[in-house]
Amino acid sequence: VSGPKVESSLETVAWVGDATTGHLRLIDQTLLPGQFVQVDCRDVPATWEAIKSLRVRGAPAIGIAAAFGTLLGGQAGLNLGIEGVRAAVKAAGSYLRTSRPTAVNLFWALDRMERVAESETTTDPVVFLERLLAEAQAISDEDKAMCRSIGRFGAPLIQPGQGVLTHCNAGGLATADYGTALAVIFSAFENGTKLRVFADETRPLLQGARLTAWELQRRGIPVTLICDNMAAQVMKERKIDLVVVGADRIAANGDAANKIGTYGVALLAKAHGIPFYVAAPSSTFDLTIEDGSAIPIEQRDPREITHSFGRATAPEGVDVYNPAFDVTPAELIAGIITERGIIRPVNTETVAEMLGIPRPAVKDYRLV
Amino acid sequence: VSGPKVESSLETVAWVGDATTGHLRLIDQTLLPGQFVQVDCRDVPATWEAIKSLRVRGAPAIGIAAAFGTLLGGQAGLNLGIEGVRAAVKAAGSYLRTSRPTAVNLFWALDRMERVAESETTTDPVVFLERLLAEAQAISDEDKAMCRSIGRFGAPLIQPGQGVLTHCNAGGLATADYGTALAVIFSAFENGTKLRVFADETRPLLQGARLTAWELQRRGIPVTLICDNMAAQVMKERKIDLVVVGADRIAANGDAANKIGTYGVALLAKAHGIPFYVAAPSSTFDLTIEDGSAIPIEQRDPREITHSFGRATAPEGVDVYNPAFDVTPAELIAGIITERGIIRPVNTETVAEMLGIPRPAVKDYRLV
Repeated sequence: VSGPKVESSLETVAWVGDATTGHLRLIDQTLLPGQFVQVDCRDVPATWEAIKSLRVRGAPAIGIAAAFGTLLGGQAGLNLGIEGVRAAVKAAGSYLRTSRPTAVNLFWALDRMERVAESETTTDPVVFLERLLAEAQAISDEDKAMCRSIGRFGAPLIQPGQGVLTHCNAGGLATADYGTALAVIFSAFENGTKLRVFADETRPLLQGARLTAWELQRRGIPVTLICDNMAAQVMKERKIDLVVVGADRIAANGDAANKIGTYGVALLAKAHGIPFYVAAPSSTFDLTIEDGSAIPIEQRDPREITHSFGRATAPEGVDVYNPAFDVTPAELIAGIITERGIIRPVNTETVAEMLGIPRPAVKDYRLV
Repeated sequence: VSGPKVESSLETVAWVGDATTGHLRLIDQTLLPGQFVQVDCRDVPATWEAIKSLRVRGAPAIGIAAAFGTLLGGQAGLNLGIEGVRAAVKAAGSYLRTSRPTAVNLFWALDRMERVAESETTTDPVVFLERLLAEAQAISDEDKAMCRSIGRFGAPLIQPGQGVLTHCNAGGLATADYGTALAVIFSAFENGTKLRVFADETRPLLQGARLTAWELQRRGIPVTLICDNMAAQVMKERKIDLVVVGADRIAANGDAANKIGTYGVALLAKAHGIPFYVAAPSSTFDLTIEDGSAIPIEQRDPREITHSFGRATAPEGVDVYNPAFDVTPAELIAGIITERGIIRPVNTETVAEMLGIPRPAVKDYRLV
């Protein structure tokens, strides 16, 4: 990761320059909201580090960053001829797959890139990389379109004057643009629906406080920040009419992995009779997994909990449990808002029906 | 509050010296676990500030600190004769009542001090203050005995090998000594019961991470720190067999106010079939209140959420909701562990029965 750049674009993640000499540029989300800094990733390790350290995060955005990242691998192999470039691109993909285990969009995007790398017949390394750049750009462009569509389908769920709770950040910063859960809110607000958002701060890394509150505030949408442990109380006070969150991986039966704390919010919503929605594009579904029990849950550094504000907030040496995600069972989900429409009720049949495909064989789960 | 003192005692809150020249000494809990510092309060405003800013916190400890604090008021009136001292003590009580609204132990302890101040017939100001010191010391000594008794009654609830979740800090730091919820854990552990505690960090001020984890670690009790939003997940993983928390005020029907997030934990425990217990001395009951809806909930500074670690973690100017407490309805509470025994099931009749008194008239709620 090279030094900070002057703000030149608000894109969460983008490619700057041509296929053979360009690079990946992304907003460093670890510094928001205090500083808006864009960082340039000029090789695969820098891209891996940016994903691993959550400079770029959010399931769709991770996938897009990784797709562009494979080009950086290819650039390093340019003088090795076409097979060298192809091998370098595939090696980059293998490397980037090790960055974060839970969000399936990472694997989905890298699968797309690998498929192009394998099938591309040109013998010109430059044309080869241009073809890959076009594919990565398509993934980004499709994501933007999917987010807008999710917003259109989800917006009518919010009635005028309602309160909406969200957890973590499933906004423009988690996608190429516009978001998934926040797309529903943005779209309703743009339609003139008065609403108020309650944003869980989302410990340990405070994506709700730092990113969701920031995105909503920039758009002039009323937002109230709460600590995660206040969600039950605001529900009891009837301030919340619906919950909408994103997802990192959704199993064939609709069980949805999302940021740690989401499962608890879903249980609290049920206890208060509040509908709980998930908003996610098709690329978030992993139909090779029957249910949520098989979704790998990333465990992260204990210091995110004990030292995350630059100061020790727990006794030295204390045991810590820090799962980054949890799984919300389908029966707690009122609907899954996709770019194709809303899946409801949520079960294996309705998921398969919306995705428009028969149950695929294991390892053939690409939802293009 | 005067400067830091060398560690001379581990008492959460204590009186140092005689009635006429002594002062209040307390552990500054805002600095734990990084620094162990005792501060001396030599006047009423310093005592008020120590309570308001949570240097001393926990319902029983607040009551004890305030009881001693009335002596500091009396000292300032010593040269005014007996009626001057009496008036100064009463004025100190009125002042200290404004520090924090939710925990009833504060009002209960100040009522006891005021009753002594009103009924004491000596004309010697020094004897008068000595009598008040004896009453404040009695409140502290009784609290220590109550905590031990809560531990004895509660310990058998924990079976060997079980996991116990607690929220916030209801330990020795919240009382004169030994705690309420943690007394149950300490006592079971001292009886040889193997167990593991999961401590919610308890945003915004992290009493679980900073104080509960510290107290357990010092005693060699296995403890795992989690963020508040991980409680549902550890319950789902069957790591939790029971929940035990403290309380700041309990209504006549058993509805219990405690640190924000407790109500959510109780709902999550119910969803997982895990018993949820409250541990609190008789002084925590407020029988003038029929149910929890009448318990005043303190609202605290938004900066506790947006700036609590010396760094901005939310965008400037964002709306914040920061209730310090919530109320858990009696029907979610498996039992209330008091120094007199365990109230279960929890309802108006069983509460009255355990407290051993008929329903009092409003404003006659002193449980001496």
